[in-house]
Amino acid sequence: MATAVAGPEIERLIQLLSRLPGLGPRSARRAALHLIKKREALMAPLASALQVAIERIQVCKTCGNIDTQNPCTVCTDPRRDPAIIVVVADVADLWALERAHASNGRYHVLGATLSPLDGVGPQDLTIDALVARAHDPQVSEIVLALNATVDGQTTAHYITDLLMEANVKVTRLAHGVPVGGELDYLDEGTLSAAMRQRTLF
Amino acid sequence: MATAVAGPEIERLIQLLSRLPGLGPRSARRAALHLIKKREALMAPLASALQVAIERIQVCKTCGNIDTQNPCTVCTDPRRDPAIIVVVADVADLWALERAHASNGRYHVLGATLSPLDGVGPQDLTIDALVARAHDPQVSEIVLALNATVDGQTTAHYITDLLMEANVKVTRLAHGVPVGGELDYLDEGTLSAAMRQRTLF
Repeated sequence: MATAVAGPEIERLIQLLSRLPGLGPRSARRAALHLIKKREALMAPLASALQVAIERIQVCKTCGNIDTQNPCTVCTDPRRDPAIIVVVADVADLWALERAHASNGRYHVLGATLSPLDGVGPQDLTIDALVARAHDPQVSEIVLALNATVDGQTTAHYITDLLMEANVKVTRLAHGVPVGGELDYLDEGTLSAAMRQRTLF
Repeated sequence: MATAVAGPEIERLIQLLSRLPGLGPRSARRAALHLIKKREALMAPLASALQVAIERIQVCKTCGNIDTQNPCTVCTDPRRDPAIIVVVADVADLWALERAHASNGRYHVLGATLSPLDGVGPQDLTIDALVARAHDPQVSEIVLALNATVDGQTTAHYITDLLMEANVKVTRLAHGVPVGGELDYLDEGTLSAAMRQRTLF
């Protein structure tokens, strides 16, 4: 429709922006207009940041993290404990744990969680590479930092079974009351887990 | 924070994306990851669409529309009625009216609405150019297609006063029940306007 008004170039920009998560067709149109209005301050820097990202960003061959170096900054950091591998489903989870400074170990990005309903099987995940890393004598603990959802926990069980043979301790994130959370609003599963795993004050 | 994980290039991309309307810091991070994962299918096309937009998109000198030609497609379309100028606050409103095929006239984009509280005065709008266009003997009607908000209506009154001298009819959009709207959910102002401006069935 708007093709007739503004030409195919703008329509193409809107269509590409609408494929970003969080932007629908309507907000993509607003975003495109905003970019066009801020040509020097925003559109040009964004175009060049994307170009830099296209040229320089790589997937770490060791852990699956995204970085401008390969192996990534985390894998090559000598201050990181090589004994611990934190398994995450997605790079977004890795970033979240890093923002929280939650671990001093290294990571392994699976790429997804097992989801039979969506047709995601073990061959779609980097599980073989994880098992290989777990057999490295340096590694002593695999932390499964997966979502507390059915798919996340299915994946955790599947991996735990495969790691039986490896000489590693397999752990998972604690369940419990979120910091700042109110008991009254928590589901029963979380509350009973928090009670079972209560710690000394 | 995440700088340490993923490098300044990704952080820069996230920061630029977070300045788009509709994307906060968190969704900008998700959008950046999505782009990085879809390098060939999405990131590269978006980078080049932005580059094309930077090089080719211009603001129409006549009406303020955004297009790859100047004067824009609407202003140069011979099928458009040169007697009618539809005044809108923003290019987004022009696009909305075009999508609705609401008018066969030409447009005038003010750039904003008057808003004393936000320090937007008449000098910030393209009101002088509108008054000049209204004095063109070809033009017989100015349609004020402005938001039905305080700022929109203030702007409409201000422009109407200025156009007293010009030999044009000044009209505004009708108020009424939105198509598909339920009376029960409408405010009293809209309902009484719809009643006052009722039409023959």
